[in-house]
Amino acid sequence: MRLSELSRAAGLPRATVRWYLRVGLLHPGTPTAANQARYDETHVRRLRLVRVLLEVGGMSVDAARRVLAAVDRADVSVGELLAVAHRALSTTSPRGDRPEELAAVDRFLTDRGWQVRPDSPARRDLAAVLAALRDLGPDSAPPVDTPAAVDRLLTPYAAAAERIARSEIRNAPAGLTREQLVERVIAGSVLMERALTALRRLAHEHHAIQRYGAGRDAPAAG
Amino acid sequence: MRLSELSRAAGLPRATVRWYLRVGLLHPGTPTAANQARYDETHVRRLRLVRVLLEVGGMSVDAARRVLAAVDRADVSVGELLAVAHRALSTTSPRGDRPEELAAVDRFLTDRGWQVRPDSPARRDLAAVLAALRDLGPDSAPPVDTPAAVDRLLTPYAAAAERIARSEIRNAPAGLTREQLVERVIAGSVLMERALTALRRLAHEHHAIQRYGAGRDAPAAG
Repeated sequence: MRLSELSRAAGLPRATVRWYLRVGLLHPGTPTAANQARYDETHVRRLRLVRVLLEVGGMSVDAARRVLAAVDRADVSVGELLAVAHRALSTTSPRGDRPEELAAVDRFLTDRGWQVRPDSPARRDLAAVLAALRDLGPDSAPPVDTPAAVDRLLTPYAAAAERIARSEIRNAPAGLTREQLVERVIAGSVLMERALTALRRLAHEHHAIQRYGAGRDAPAAG
Repeated sequence: MRLSELSRAAGLPRATVRWYLRVGLLHPGTPTAANQARYDETHVRRLRLVRVLLEVGGMSVDAARRVLAAVDRADVSVGELLAVAHRALSTTSPRGDRPEELAAVDRFLTDRGWQVRPDSPARRDLAAVLAALRDLGPDSAPPVDTPAAVDRLLTPYAAAAERIARSEIRNAPAGLTREQLVERVIAGSVLMERALTALRRLAHEHHAIQRYGAGRDAPAAG
């Protein structure tokens, strides 16, 4: 197909598709004439994935390019790919390298039997949260000063995360090609993380309204 | 206390504290002489909250200012405050206003009996995820073309979110002042959302390593 057809198939303006080609988020088509090329289904699929990373994941072009490079390398395992995606999604957490909080995170993960890569950015993200809670102090935040307190605080979240990971693995269809698997893993990790965040906010709002009232504006069902 | 003492108490450079004063993230101290002022515990507490919003929540100065304005208004309910915080955390989702996906979200929320404000940004975030899944198509993403499919996909996440919200409410200490309650709600919603995301990523990595292997680098426990 031509660039105009590709743009229509992907639901993106032609200028955007050209820009993705220029910055290397989309592989070039097969040249047919000067300034003309043919594109195929692989381009449509890739554009859909690019939209997920940029629009939903909020990634920079550089971050999305790193994820796509990992997607395209056959020797990158699913575990590594997730780490690359999580690194691209992760924001820098200035307090994520405090040794005491990193040790608390590692203790918690070991207790749960979770194996994660030591360079996993989520490990530092979690340490940054513990550091912020400790800095806030017991007046404004739950205590995190002992392993038991950390355990009490994090366990409901970890149990929820565990249940979700299990159900995702259970529901993953069998017999996927590596390409399909990898796309599903990336799209799933970006999109379903966003879905979980949105649902947590909605549950939080629902329960806050139940407990503390709706305030001046009346709530609406749904 | 003086500005230098405030800066030490909050663990922030003096220049940063001065900048927060200038952009209105911190209320002025009581003037004592030309270019001198006294600060108190309210300034220390506010600085801790500002760090949570900016460093962990990744909010812009404008977004953090909107949240703090709501924190300071005694007539803003906890439900409203959460909506303000969620709006400040939310990224724009270009596909969040597609009517079909918004209707699917509303149906799902009504079925679960969740009451949320119709202007809740999380509602649009969730619609944007459904729109992205639909655009990816059944080859690369789970199906979302019927209410039953949406229900099947979202229920594990919603159940997890519900359990977390319940346990947060159960664990909230009683007898807090409004100020303490509001600080806890904001800090908790920003920090524990980040904790949940980190734990979900870690669980995801753990299960991916279990199922698909660790790849070239060996995983480390914890």
